[in-house]
Amino acid sequence: MLPFKTLIVIDESSTIAIYRQIADQLIVMIRDGVMKPGTFLPSTREMAALLDKHRNTIVAAYEELITQDWIETLPRIGIRVSLNLPVIKPRSFQESGKKLTYSSPAKFSFKQNIPGLTTSAYSLKRSSIIINDGFPDADLAPYDGMLKEYRKLLRGAKIKKLMYLKDFGGTAALKESTVHFLNNSRGLNISTDNLLITRGAQMAIYLAAAMILKPGDNVLVTDPNYLIADSVFKQMGANLIRVPVDEDGMDIEAVEIALKSFKISLLYVIPHHHHPTTVTMSQSRRTKLLELIKSYQLPVIEDDYDYDFHYGNSPVLPLASSSHDSNVIYIGSFTKLLAPSCRIGYLIGPADFIIQATNLKRMIDLRGDTLMEEALSVIINSGELDRHIKKSKKIYSERCDQTALVIKDQLADVVDFTKPQGGLALWLKFNADYPLADVIPKAQSLGLILVGGAYYQGTDQKHNGIRFGFASLKEAEMYRAVELLHSITVLSKKQ
Amino acid sequence: MLPFKTLIVIDESSTIAIYRQIADQLIVMIRDGVMKPGTFLPSTREMAALLDKHRNTIVAAYEELITQDWIETLPRIGIRVSLNLPVIKPRSFQESGKKLTYSSPAKFSFKQNIPGLTTSAYSLKRSSIIINDGFPDADLAPYDGMLKEYRKLLRGAKIKKLMYLKDFGGTAALKESTVHFLNNSRGLNISTDNLLITRGAQMAIYLAAAMILKPGDNVLVTDPNYLIADSVFKQMGANLIRVPVDEDGMDIEAVEIALKSFKISLLYVIPHHHHPTTVTMSQSRRTKLLELIKSYQLPVIEDDYDYDFHYGNSPVLPLASSSHDSNVIYIGSFTKLLAPSCRIGYLIGPADFIIQATNLKRMIDLRGDTLMEEALSVIINSGELDRHIKKSKKIYSERCDQTALVIKDQLADVVDFTKPQGGLALWLKFNADYPLADVIPKAQSLGLILVGGAYYQGTDQKHNGIRFGFASLKEAEMYRAVELLHSITVLSKKQ
Repeated sequence: MLPFKTLIVIDESSTIAIYRQIADQLIVMIRDGVMKPGTFLPSTREMAALLDKHRNTIVAAYEELITQDWIETLPRIGIRVSLNLPVIKPRSFQESGKKLTYSSPAKFSFKQNIPGLTTSAYSLKRSSIIINDGFPDADLAPYDGMLKEYRKLLRGAKIKKLMYLKDFGGTAALKESTVHFLNNSRGLNISTDNLLITRGAQMAIYLAAAMILKPGDNVLVTDPNYLIADSVFKQMGANLIRVPVDEDGMDIEAVEIALKSFKISLLYVIPHHHHPTTVTMSQSRRTKLLELIKSYQLPVIEDDYDYDFHYGNSPVLPLASSSHDSNVIYIGSFTKLLAPSCRIGYLIGPADFIIQATNLKRMIDLRGDTLMEEALSVIINSGELDRHIKKSKKIYSERCDQTALVIKDQLADVVDFTKPQGGLALWLKFNADYPLADVIPKAQSLGLILVGGAYYQGTDQKHNGIRFGFASLKEAEMYRAVELLHSITVLSKKQ
Repeated sequence: MLPFKTLIVIDESSTIAIYRQIADQLIVMIRDGVMKPGTFLPSTREMAALLDKHRNTIVAAYEELITQDWIETLPRIGIRVSLNLPVIKPRSFQESGKKLTYSSPAKFSFKQNIPGLTTSAYSLKRSSIIINDGFPDADLAPYDGMLKEYRKLLRGAKIKKLMYLKDFGGTAALKESTVHFLNNSRGLNISTDNLLITRGAQMAIYLAAAMILKPGDNVLVTDPNYLIADSVFKQMGANLIRVPVDEDGMDIEAVEIALKSFKISLLYVIPHHHHPTTVTMSQSRRTKLLELIKSYQLPVIEDDYDYDFHYGNSPVLPLASSSHDSNVIYIGSFTKLLAPSCRIGYLIGPADFIIQATNLKRMIDLRGDTLMEEALSVIINSGELDRHIKKSKKIYSERCDQTALVIKDQLADVVDFTKPQGGLALWLKFNADYPLADVIPKAQSLGLILVGGAYYQGTDQKHNGIRFGFASLKEAEMYRAVELLHSITVLSKKQ
């Protein structure tokens, strides 16, 4: 008998079930000819003893092998490797050996130093609290409605037909529903020709930038700005020209000076709840910016990722809803209305631009998730999405108020912030005595994982701030998070 | 009373429910101040008569408005516009007017002529048969298992934590399961450091090309080649150098001549069931190609999108599994194993390459579908995916044989093809008497939508061929499709 105890290595910490680990290793032995057709295996009882596992585990492993035709049972005789194996070992055309497929680094040249994430190591525990940079609470997400629609859709024949058709940037039904949703909520007046469905706002930013920018072009952005947008523009070979952002949003006088001084190919602006600072642009600046857009025929990406969650007063309509001579590319996302994993966003622009952007999108992402797109369309049309927005807006507004109160109370000497008019995060500027490069790893060692913070830490120390996503935190988690931050800052104050 | 009959326009053909259309238009009237707070609405009975709709439809519309606090019921008096409206109209900071947001084409410059799809118009009917270019049958897809896992995962707290963490190119569990799956099925010997999870193989091709290519670089591809890969390379500014493909796959002697004549930055190869021609590369050519890869240190994208469905004999292991000095980037997809809408693929390469590719991926697609990734991991680990592959491979193999027989019988004078050793499509080369530019629109007018064909039609007339995806066709559909093609070709033979 083979030395199964040594041959079969079981990793108790693996996510792969133990019976599967056993079955898989037996398959490899059969495939590799270590166990030849006709060889008898130990009985389940014997194998259980050999491997020091429960017999039921072995029974499950053997059943798996029987289902797959690797082994066969001869009643009253035993279990043997099948005489007709289900697949012959895939033919290797070279000696494969046991060495790693990728034992050396790449020898060919490829793009280096693409900006990534600087994160301290952490292990996720049951008690870990994750502070994200402004995502909705997945517990509130309309998953029940979505899954119900999935099941309904899968019972019909239509969804399968839709899956086989080429993708034209979203299913027809979702495009119609989204147009309806945007025209009603944002005062846009668009048709489906102006719309491309994407994987979240991020893909929309990438596509718009790839469509407009050439290497050497100048892009106007705020200082600081949404970091991954900056990375995208740099990836396209563009230069970033930064203008300040204050409590009224992007400094439009600085924009005007830049327009007079440089050839600007694109302006990127987040008018509602600017990322990362959460400020909302004032009406007078919007009016002035629109004038500049028209007089300079300036292409603009308006990233309005957070429009639907505005608390203090009614939201101001997007730039895209006003007269802009078709210069504003408008970007948003359903992700913030659903859950982080439901990545459906949109890119709005002139019809000729959308045709080309759709062609480009197909090269990157052949089609969307047809099932999710159709289900989302149903919950938009039924009004479920509107009700969900209304309900969660109320909850997030309360969480915003309460988080602001608690942080003001507990961390007054540590952080400075202004309660935003909307959105899902606070922008906490840490006092220089508490460098985030120290605070973040300390927090992570205590189970407080500041994901939103990792954006700003290290890359640009002059902005010693983090996004504190309050929307996804239950009351107790928020209190605990602030308490942990408090205890860390007491200990880590720079002397 | 307002002229509701004229004010409320109902589109019976819309996917939006009629009660929603009525509710939405009433909301707009309230928002716009056409109906002021305190104004009484007609009773449901009166409104039903006015709009010529069933009273229940009006009741549903009013209930929607009541839920949203736009109107309120005064018992025994009537229904009026709420005195305290739920949201004040979003403030426009410019006269918005009623004109289209994007009334003119874009005035700024953007990338033009990005290759798209040339498709004849069609309308999807219940009886339509769609011939795709090689997708699995969604009716066989393990949706039940996936949805069951969705529900289970959503009951736990872990999935929500995973959603809030930054994405490192796939969840840790899916990366582990995929490594296990690939090492077992393909003789790879990789770790999770060599793996990036993508949205299907398409995104993996895009990322690899974007990482490796600079404008002006030369890329070696077959003639013909997977059209969207060609588009991606051109999008990166690369030149395509084409080598022939015959019944043994890519012509490796031609590759060697090209390597001697040009500086080649990348070779793109599909060794199993080449797209579009379905040929599988011979062992001797693979061996020769590996020698060239090593002697020229040639970077290669090996697109192995169809590895798991090989019928005739056992599949040959990928190039990536043999010794290649870390030069082969290996690409594949779970989409072909699940359903067209479940887009999860992978990019395999040296660890240093994968780090940068992951950073680039995040700029395009901030995170994957955490829920789908975790569910897929479970069905890989439980063995359900292997069982599904085994089951569907048997069905597809039969469909392949049968489709080949029927086409040989019915279209012998019309098309030429070789039954492939695997994969989900046949490559039908139409006789020059039957130009696909004629056949495809005629077929579409009869409800036979040749989606796979649209790739090759028009763009490159010398390849008068289409991919005929047989895997997703039930027997009756396949017979009907061939019958329709037969009747069309009888009528449309060029004189």
